[in-house]
Amino acid sequence: MQTTNKFVPGLDGVVASETAISLLDTKEEKIIIRGYELIELSRENDFLDMVHLLLENSLPTAEEKEKLDKKLKDNYGLPKEIYDILKLLPKDTHPMDGLRTGLSSLGGFDKDLLDFSTEVNKDRAYDLLAKLPALIVNSYHILNGDEPIEPRQDLSYGANFLYMVTGRVPSKLEEEIFDRALLLYSEHEMPNSTFTARVIASTMSDLYGALTGAVASLKGYLHGGANEAVMHDLLKADSASEFEELIMNKLRNKEKVMGFGHRVYMKKMDPRALVMKDALKQLCEAKGDYKLLEMCEAGEKVMEREIGIYPNLDYYVAPCYWLLDIPIPLYTPIFYGSRASGLTAHVIEQHDNNRLFRPRVKYTGEQYSPIK
Amino acid sequence: MQTTNKFVPGLDGVVASETAISLLDTKEEKIIIRGYELIELSRENDFLDMVHLLLENSLPTAEEKEKLDKKLKDNYGLPKEIYDILKLLPKDTHPMDGLRTGLSSLGGFDKDLLDFSTEVNKDRAYDLLAKLPALIVNSYHILNGDEPIEPRQDLSYGANFLYMVTGRVPSKLEEEIFDRALLLYSEHEMPNSTFTARVIASTMSDLYGALTGAVASLKGYLHGGANEAVMHDLLKADSASEFEELIMNKLRNKEKVMGFGHRVYMKKMDPRALVMKDALKQLCEAKGDYKLLEMCEAGEKVMEREIGIYPNLDYYVAPCYWLLDIPIPLYTPIFYGSRASGLTAHVIEQHDNNRLFRPRVKYTGEQYSPIK
Repeated sequence: MQTTNKFVPGLDGVVASETAISLLDTKEEKIIIRGYELIELSRENDFLDMVHLLLENSLPTAEEKEKLDKKLKDNYGLPKEIYDILKLLPKDTHPMDGLRTGLSSLGGFDKDLLDFSTEVNKDRAYDLLAKLPALIVNSYHILNGDEPIEPRQDLSYGANFLYMVTGRVPSKLEEEIFDRALLLYSEHEMPNSTFTARVIASTMSDLYGALTGAVASLKGYLHGGANEAVMHDLLKADSASEFEELIMNKLRNKEKVMGFGHRVYMKKMDPRALVMKDALKQLCEAKGDYKLLEMCEAGEKVMEREIGIYPNLDYYVAPCYWLLDIPIPLYTPIFYGSRASGLTAHVIEQHDNNRLFRPRVKYTGEQYSPIK
Repeated sequence: MQTTNKFVPGLDGVVASETAISLLDTKEEKIIIRGYELIELSRENDFLDMVHLLLENSLPTAEEKEKLDKKLKDNYGLPKEIYDILKLLPKDTHPMDGLRTGLSSLGGFDKDLLDFSTEVNKDRAYDLLAKLPALIVNSYHILNGDEPIEPRQDLSYGANFLYMVTGRVPSKLEEEIFDRALLLYSEHEMPNSTFTARVIASTMSDLYGALTGAVASLKGYLHGGANEAVMHDLLKADSASEFEELIMNKLRNKEKVMGFGHRVYMKKMDPRALVMKDALKQLCEAKGDYKLLEMCEAGEKVMEREIGIYPNLDYYVAPCYWLLDIPIPLYTPIFYGSRASGLTAHVIEQHDNNRLFRPRVKYTGEQYSPIK
């Protein structure tokens, strides 16, 4: 025996980090971020408040928020070379891979790359968060053969993000709902992408490397792709009853129904999903067309009735994104853009109090040489 | 409490994976790879044998080896766009970051990217291993403002790799020693970069993403950079006694002496280091200059005498690379080129028998809302 510890597949339930950033309270089914409940935060605060909370460990004063807003707006733009690099990628490159390459390239433009002090790391994080919307949206546009859209500093963080996606300035309602999804996706304890970022950062590798690895992680269909899968399913049906039939068929064929349940918790409905369900109602009302809401509610009911599993955030974000005119291949990259706020906080925390991740294995191979 | 498990910093001793690929036998201080002892393998086999062993779970027959050799040679070349992308990076981009960006870009050239079957994954791994020498060496050349060097299919894997570094065809001895270092670095159980690759692969993300994350991990100075640090130390002294003095000073100042010890094992000298110490002897003999060997031996002795810690592989690889005319900033990228053989095997094993990595945390933050 090389270690007396038991193998736990997927590190299920294993405590991998101490963190003051967030916790999934599985008993109460609450998401705690820097001491606040995420759902409460979503009522009175926006994504910029969340960025400040994550990186500065406090909600911003009016003055702090104005400063943060300016700091981000001043850095919305990307170096021209990043666009040139994205133009050289094959046109059928996956949007997450375009983002991964662009993000990796950005490291070379950082002049303090070897300075891991908290302050420099924070500045790096703000710079990266400022640039991510342009990087995310324009890798998509460029891979589609379209010209990049320049960010607009006269628009709020969320409004500019959504404007670059669609090419039109969003309505107040659209801006608010897009921002709310950014806030709800921002941080969620220790999912695979956050774990990836911390594992990489623990070698004292830099923020760009850790966040590039997290893009690769979120790309996997077991992690970030669920919101896209939900929308593809919704588009296969044209009414509540057709969607119910589609789900029943999946259950009969023992296929996974995307947008339901969660590995760690959820004996009831994801509290974040409830917020986005309400947003979907508002969007349907504004359009005067309730079909998507009716379909989603039908799906929710049939899943509860048949197997007692409830919607997660992806389930109600997908139709909202659809009504916001966001192309489906951007759902996961935008999720990443939001989660990057939490990821940067985790990388900084890891660097500030580091221990290299270096686990062991249970060897199941041959032993041609005697192993005692 | 959210979980009853104890927090183990760095997952020290925690069994994170089952694997049939390799094991550090910490009691015997042996490295077992696919059932064979690494040091025994290094006596009769070369890096290509190791690639076959890692990916096919058997040492190759003469016919299999010829096929593998041809498969790799046929794919030595990189798409022209990769060079164009590297030319767009700022010239002071870190060589590991150039490699990270180039590797990430390669994903878009794979036409079966969503096929994770073992066979397609293996073909993908061979293609990547074929291309890595050109990618590693030429990102360095391009970032230095030099033109890329085209790979030569008439040279063996190791000889071509080293030829691209120096621009001259290596001697038989140089080729053998470079190849031996490739073999010794190829696989080492579950270091951070291998763990990173498996964590990413567990979301069912692809090989390029997993290996891009591993570049980011290996870049960190707590992981892959030790061989470079050793050489920088050696260059600060000009004789065995000066090097001994340099180490004594470090010990007095409680600075870390690079190239010694290992997180998981090593109560005696790293068996791989012994092999490379012998290689260093051979290189010194060929040059008729034993200074580097004498310095290294002096360092070895003083570390044993003062704190009872022994050299690891990096310690004796560094002076060998120096005598092979390899520029220091390429030491870590070349280490990566070797380790990629083990990394691809781990990604394939993870995809073939997957469980998403999703650990928990110990929350140490505030609790403004009651958390029960």
